[in-house]
Amino acid sequence: MPEFELPLGFRFGGVACGIKASGRPDVSLIACDQAVSAAGVYTQNQIVAAPVVLSRSRTPSASIRAVVTNSGNANACTGGQGDQDAAEMCRLVAAQVGCSEEEVLVMSTGIIGRHLPMERVEAGIASAAEKLGDSVDHFSAAAAAILTTDKSPKTAHRTVELDGQQVRISAMAKGAGMIAPNMATMLGVVMTDAAIAPQQLQALLSSAADVSFNRVSVDGHTSTNDTVLALASGKSGIEITPERADVFRETLTEVCVELARELVADGEGAQHVMKIHVGGAGSDHDADGIARAIGESPLVKTAITGGDPNWGRIVSAAGYAGFQITPAQTTLRICGTKIFENGTPIAYDAASLSQTMKATPEIDIELIVGSGSGEATRWASDLTCEYVRFNSEYTT
Amino acid sequence: MPEFELPLGFRFGGVACGIKASGRPDVSLIACDQAVSAAGVYTQNQIVAAPVVLSRSRTPSASIRAVVTNSGNANACTGGQGDQDAAEMCRLVAAQVGCSEEEVLVMSTGIIGRHLPMERVEAGIASAAEKLGDSVDHFSAAAAAILTTDKSPKTAHRTVELDGQQVRISAMAKGAGMIAPNMATMLGVVMTDAAIAPQQLQALLSSAADVSFNRVSVDGHTSTNDTVLALASGKSGIEITPERADVFRETLTEVCVELARELVADGEGAQHVMKIHVGGAGSDHDADGIARAIGESPLVKTAITGGDPNWGRIVSAAGYAGFQITPAQTTLRICGTKIFENGTPIAYDAASLSQTMKATPEIDIELIVGSGSGEATRWASDLTCEYVRFNSEYTT
Repeated sequence: MPEFELPLGFRFGGVACGIKASGRPDVSLIACDQAVSAAGVYTQNQIVAAPVVLSRSRTPSASIRAVVTNSGNANACTGGQGDQDAAEMCRLVAAQVGCSEEEVLVMSTGIIGRHLPMERVEAGIASAAEKLGDSVDHFSAAAAAILTTDKSPKTAHRTVELDGQQVRISAMAKGAGMIAPNMATMLGVVMTDAAIAPQQLQALLSSAADVSFNRVSVDGHTSTNDTVLALASGKSGIEITPERADVFRETLTEVCVELARELVADGEGAQHVMKIHVGGAGSDHDADGIARAIGESPLVKTAITGGDPNWGRIVSAAGYAGFQITPAQTTLRICGTKIFENGTPIAYDAASLSQTMKATPEIDIELIVGSGSGEATRWASDLTCEYVRFNSEYTT
Repeated sequence: MPEFELPLGFRFGGVACGIKASGRPDVSLIACDQAVSAAGVYTQNQIVAAPVVLSRSRTPSASIRAVVTNSGNANACTGGQGDQDAAEMCRLVAAQVGCSEEEVLVMSTGIIGRHLPMERVEAGIASAAEKLGDSVDHFSAAAAAILTTDKSPKTAHRTVELDGQQVRISAMAKGAGMIAPNMATMLGVVMTDAAIAPQQLQALLSSAADVSFNRVSVDGHTSTNDTVLALASGKSGIEITPERADVFRETLTEVCVELARELVADGEGAQHVMKIHVGGAGSDHDADGIARAIGESPLVKTAITGGDPNWGRIVSAAGYAGFQITPAQTTLRICGTKIFENGTPIAYDAASLSQTMKATPEIDIELIVGSGSGEATRWASDLTCEYVRFNSEYTT
């Protein structure tokens, strides 16, 4: 029996329609019982897929009725035909759930540069609509149908207690490669039955995404399709007033961080997650930039793969990140062990720390770079032969 | 018989003194018959090794008599003792060649965070000084002693004809990993027997480095020790007047580009070099930034490893580089074959192009991103399992 309740007001469906040659599920549908508030955050790539253009133009919104997602084909770099196909997906869903096409949001992920097989998509949407339901199994089917190279589905659930009453948050995400900050190649939908006005929902989603999905890196490559949507049905009858916003935001952020970490942990070929905390920087922005340089350095990544507490690679990555550091005040801890202090390596038990690193799935890297108050946390995967093999053998 | 003549006025020596456990050569000495003009370009990392601090403070100079390099130990993150050791290396060389310590430049490369074994270094400097000579064999011995993980020495030679008279340029470099723009982990010395004033030599070196050493990427990780020095002995009797500067700069740049390409080709685990040319950008600076994003994307690198003409990864890397592109005017050629035109993939023989890519050591990637006049060329290595293995098993 699940330890969580799904938010009220949503139904889910997921089916296989043959976009994927593997026969795995590839059409996911979320239908709202009534019009809901919706917000979105999108890729910052200048090359954007047709569904991103369409959904971006429709959020924030006070009246969304459905979200349709296909996996296996990104509908990116597909020209005018791609725009028509994305719009057609929304029309097909609108006909099924009984709303206007403007009330439907769309996401796609998969191969770039090929047109969607629209006959299959049409059949898939009809089939997903038939199977809509509000059970956990229905939710799981929808979450499975958005996956591509993921090893496992990524979902998170929370209940928020507000003045003695409960609202629920449930979310699903996908993504394992082409993962970079500023929206990884990832899709996500966060749903709640709290009542939240569209602009407020947008602000809450943006702030949560900033410290979660925008803080993860598998390979530093920002995709053309990244989208995270938030939907608020209001079905709990509980409104997120300004007084309640902080508590709600905290839990929403928790959900987003949980999913973001799952993305990194499932990074293509990843054996370890690095949790990189940088402190003592001139500003939070600087700290974040330094953490990013560390998390994206192939030399740091491969050191983590090898269980090597290689402070030289970490400290030198901080030094070239492009933000002020004070070498004489730079101190590094890995898995809680201090190995570099005020600019100089110090004695520690390297063999024991290496053992710890090899046995720890999430490796804490804590770097102080001066006496400033700026700090930030990021998550990044290590770099393995499996990543190289996977991406040199996979082809568009 | 060599097809080149070494520049007049320099003698060379290279020996093994035991800094490297392998017993390979690790002390390199270049001595000038008389004081020469010298210039330098250095790492932009904020964490800089002791020899960089020292040499940087001494260039440009009108009076340099020797350059000493050790490999196997970077003398970086070594505190006050490291500064003393770098200065001591210069004093030891000065005593051997009969000059003041301020007339000696020093470079180091290798393991970070360990103190130099100064007794061995002292013996090595004495031995290298004894073996100084001006033959090609002597030059080769000096070039071999600066190497670390390099598979082979990197040298380049040219003769420049100026008003019927000849000046010579010879250069040596090292570097195979921790290679990034803005000075890779690389060392280099360019020597000429032209007569060039220090400030002019500095300007010539900086402009040549900008389009060569600063345009290569193996892993995007900028080291703490990068240094390229230029020495001009004037022994040819030919002065580089303003009228002659363009011709000389052209050849100097050729030498630097040749070495830079050798660095990338010898990149750790590299199977292919990408030559990335970006045109149609808003400025040369923008074009360079786009080329850099392409060359540093692990997804692009692994596609090249696999011989996959994956335009999606290349075009999307251009899209997230942070510089303006015009998707509808974006066109891509790989190895001369157009595969993406004005924002849309076009038909081509994928199997044949993939065969060509697998068989071509240097893969041309030509990307037009709009109608601007900005353009730039960069070189980057691909990413292989060998790179990952090497860097996850190697330890500081």
